[in-house]
Amino acid sequence: MPDDTSIKLTAGEIAQRVGGVLEGDASRIIDGVAGLIEACAQDLSFLGSPRYMQYMAQTAAAAVIVGQDWRGICPAAVIRVRNPEEAFFKIAELFRPAPVQYAPGIHAAAVIAADAKIGRDVTIGPFCVIEPGVTIGDRSVLVASCYIGPHSRIGDDCLFHAFVTLREYTRVGSRTILHNGVVLGSDGFGYNNVKGKWQKIPQLGTVVVGDDVELGANCTVDRARFGVTRIGNGVKIDNLTQTAHNSHIGDDSILAGLIGLAGSVHIGRRVRVGGQVGINGHIRVGDDAVIGAQAGVTNDVPPGTVVFGAPAAPYDHMIDIQASIKRLPEFKARIMELERQVKELRERFGDK
Amino acid sequence: MPDDTSIKLTAGEIAQRVGGVLEGDASRIIDGVAGLIEACAQDLSFLGSPRYMQYMAQTAAAAVIVGQDWRGICPAAVIRVRNPEEAFFKIAELFRPAPVQYAPGIHAAAVIAADAKIGRDVTIGPFCVIEPGVTIGDRSVLVASCYIGPHSRIGDDCLFHAFVTLREYTRVGSRTILHNGVVLGSDGFGYNNVKGKWQKIPQLGTVVVGDDVELGANCTVDRARFGVTRIGNGVKIDNLTQTAHNSHIGDDSILAGLIGLAGSVHIGRRVRVGGQVGINGHIRVGDDAVIGAQAGVTNDVPPGTVVFGAPAAPYDHMIDIQASIKRLPEFKARIMELERQVKELRERFGDK
Amino acid sequence: MPDDTSIKLTAGEIAQRVGGVLEGDASRIIDGVAGLIEACAQDLSFLGSPRYMQYMAQTAAAAVIVGQDWRGICPAAVIRVRNPEEAFFKIAELFRPAPVQYAPGIHAAAVIAADAKIGRDVTIGPFCVIEPGVTIGDRSVLVASCYIGPHSRIGDDCLFHAFVTLREYTRVGSRTILHNGVVLGSDGFGYNNVKGKWQKIPQLGTVVVGDDVELGANCTVDRARFGVTRIGNGVKIDNLTQTAHNSHIGDDSILAGLIGLAGSVHIGRRVRVGGQVGINGHIRVGDDAVIGAQAGVTNDVPPGTVVFGAPAAPYDHMIDIQASIKRLPEFKARIMELERQVKELRERFGDK
Repeated sequence: MPDDTSIKLTAGEIAQRVGGVLEGDASRIIDGVAGLIEACAQDLSFLGSPRYMQYMAQTAAAAVIVGQDWRGICPAAVIRVRNPEEAFFKIAELFRPAPVQYAPGIHAAAVIAADAKIGRDVTIGPFCVIEPGVTIGDRSVLVASCYIGPHSRIGDDCLFHAFVTLREYTRVGSRTILHNGVVLGSDGFGYNNVKGKWQKIPQLGTVVVGDDVELGANCTVDRARFGVTRIGNGVKIDNLTQTAHNSHIGDDSILAGLIGLAGSVHIGRRVRVGGQVGINGHIRVGDDAVIGAQAGVTNDVPPGTVVFGAPAAPYDHMIDIQASIKRLPEFKARIMELERQVKELRERFGDK
Repeated sequence: MPDDTSIKLTAGEIAQRVGGVLEGDASRIIDGVAGLIEACAQDLSFLGSPRYMQYMAQTAAAAVIVGQDWRGICPAAVIRVRNPEEAFFKIAELFRPAPVQYAPGIHAAAVIAADAKIGRDVTIGPFCVIEPGVTIGDRSVLVASCYIGPHSRIGDDCLFHAFVTLREYTRVGSRTILHNGVVLGSDGFGYNNVKGKWQKIPQLGTVVVGDDVELGANCTVDRARFGVTRIGNGVKIDNLTQTAHNSHIGDDSILAGLIGLAGSVHIGRRVRVGGQVGINGHIRVGDDAVIGAQAGVTNDVPPGTVVFGAPAAPYDHMIDIQASIKRLPEFKARIMELERQVKELRERFGDK
Repeated sequence: MPDDTSIKLTAGEIAQRVGGVLEGDASRIIDGVAGLIEACAQDLSFLGSPRYMQYMAQTAAAAVIVGQDWRGICPAAVIRVRNPEEAFFKIAELFRPAPVQYAPGIHAAAVIAADAKIGRDVTIGPFCVIEPGVTIGDRSVLVASCYIGPHSRIGDDCLFHAFVTLREYTRVGSRTILHNGVVLGSDGFGYNNVKGKWQKIPQLGTVVVGDDVELGANCTVDRARFGVTRIGNGVKIDNLTQTAHNSHIGDDSILAGLIGLAGSVHIGRRVRVGGQVGINGHIRVGDDAVIGAQAGVTNDVPPGTVVFGAPAAPYDHMIDIQASIKRLPEFKARIMELERQVKELRERFGDK
């Protein structure tokens, strides 16, 4: 991967930097890093999990970092270390493109309300809109084209990428990262059916996002019907996940992408939710619970339990069910064989 | 929830305002509203559904509005009324943050084509782009950073939040609300496979959205291959739902979030579709049908029917199937027991 | 569908243009095209698939293009041709709204870094941000409000619609189309759990997108933990699909909407993936494989295989399983009947 860095190292130099033992051609030039499958002739790779063992023989990498006791065939030079992943990422840091620095200051092409309170060393990029009554803490960065609605409050050291929206009265804590296209505070989805027409229920509440949160690109969090929709401290959510009105996500929970939380879902602390999960309205998920990918959660999940499947069920039960489902064609055959044998037995008794 | 309002009321004053009977400490100060579980010491809450009865004993709220005949233990003051939900939202209105007012006018930092026809009392916020040939009706609001493509038409009294896109020739009726990041008129997903390469099929049509529609944040509606992709009057769609080319959604239908409608889907009127549903191309869903969350719809759905599951099946049948699936491990055991007994019977007949 | 064109043709003139034989009223005026179900009194329609035969008798179209051997009842004029779809799209081209032309030039309201290298005849619309170190090839179009992060490179003849993001160091080939709200290069979703808190793992890599790619509205592609997340040449992805860090999608593969690819997924060439599919981390999908809509892929998919279901299984096996699932209530009844009969047989042997 000839990337936007001009660093070049030999396999031997890399072995030295990670305190490893090199076997093979120490003079191979390396200018990038990649996985075993994707690596090209000037890449460094690593064997981090036995799962990838099978790709060692075919890798095109110049060198591969492996554990002390790896044995096998590999066309690349191998570098033996105690912790291959740690050593690999130490080198990967050298080849990474230089991190972007955001210079403090307000771009001339941003529109800032006269009464907005902007902290020290804040970066506000071009085409940002800061509406009246907004407060932004120290050192926070709005990269470009962010819309911060009236009376919203943002803490210190936040990083908002381009095209982030905070609707009115949204509150975000400190050190929170919002990726491109995140929408906080869009109206909750609530209607009354009046003679066949959907009448909008005013969404009177707001959204409160804690400290140290990270929300992935194009995630949405709707404002509450009343009170708040709350994303707790330390919560991490992957791209394209939807959190509906009045839902609460407890501290340090982690949610994958494309999840749909219906209204008034209450997720505890340190919960882990897999991709594409759907959770019905008003469901409670206890602390430390784990929900497998694509589950459809229709009942409360007790603390510490692991559920998956749709409708979701506890792990042991669902494993049983899925194993049985796979064997259904066999069960069908066994039922038919039983029917044949029982018929034969009855005939011996003279039944027709 | 100490919010951006400075209103404070006592529990007694609230009881008076809703015409309720207070039991408990009338002097408790209230400055916000919240659900029973999330409420803090200065919040008003309510018991709207028996589902939440279990949380009455632990709520931290200052006061809870309940029905006339509720009996139980609650540390908060209780206020008895005939309709707790109605009374609660009457008070919630008092504590809501002041609604945002959009002042009519065109922001100096908007780019408007010379031939665009802009109605009376329209609001066009900063960084909006209005391309040639666009028509916008009276009193419509484009909050900020909206892109309105060439020859698009928008009716009266619409509200478009920041980062809405209307691609060329899109038409939107009156009183329609588009939330942040909505995209109308992106190209339909159509390709011919020519010797292993995908050749783009021109998407010649447009998108037509009716009156009184509401589309959630980051929803997408693709333009038609020919003719129109149509969202009928009064349709409501939640966040992150995708409507593909040539699909039609009938009047007053309601769709939850993260739904995928493939091409040329035809949804009737007053249809209800749950979250994360997928509907195959060319499927017809009749008027007043209901499709449960996460369903995979592979056959037409007759009017008035309820289907769920993947592949979706009518309610009664799917309930049977799901109940049977849960009992699969038991069925397996019963088949084994039958096999044992039949073997024994055969042995009595002298079979080996 | 009276659209933004003023072309009007008679049914007879259309028959002439497509070299077809007209039966019925040749004088009917036509000013638009539509499907059989949606057509109005001045629309041309066509019968492209037997699936739609049932709608011929009720269509409101003025004329319908049909194959040579269609027989049936239709209130519209019919025009017989050898290839109805081809003939229909020939006419649809006439009624399409005029395609948008993007005039080359850099809008005064774009913010372009001094050192950005912009090719010949490039279009950069209003409110675009081009950060330092960016390269843009000849004739590429950024319609409006695109954010191109530091050191990103874009090839020739690309088309980026409004609100596209390229984060730093992203590379996009030539002739690639990115629809509104696409995000390339947002941080991969990676954390270490340190005493119950999620600690961000730096995402050191980038995103590389090939030539002739098309990504649908609001799609997201995360930057790699190390090396690159790669979208191969000729790949087409529909709206709202998420590609996670270090995933690779091979040339000429096609993915529908709302798909979630977890980290380090490796998809081969010419693979087809249905809507709302989820693929687990580190899974390999071989060349020419096909994955049915809503599948949950938890095991590697060999080249050329067709899988569907959740958990996904090969086509033949899954067809068997789904057929068996539908018959579960029947199986239950057959087991009960067997139990009854075996009990009876045992009683004849004197068992109680």
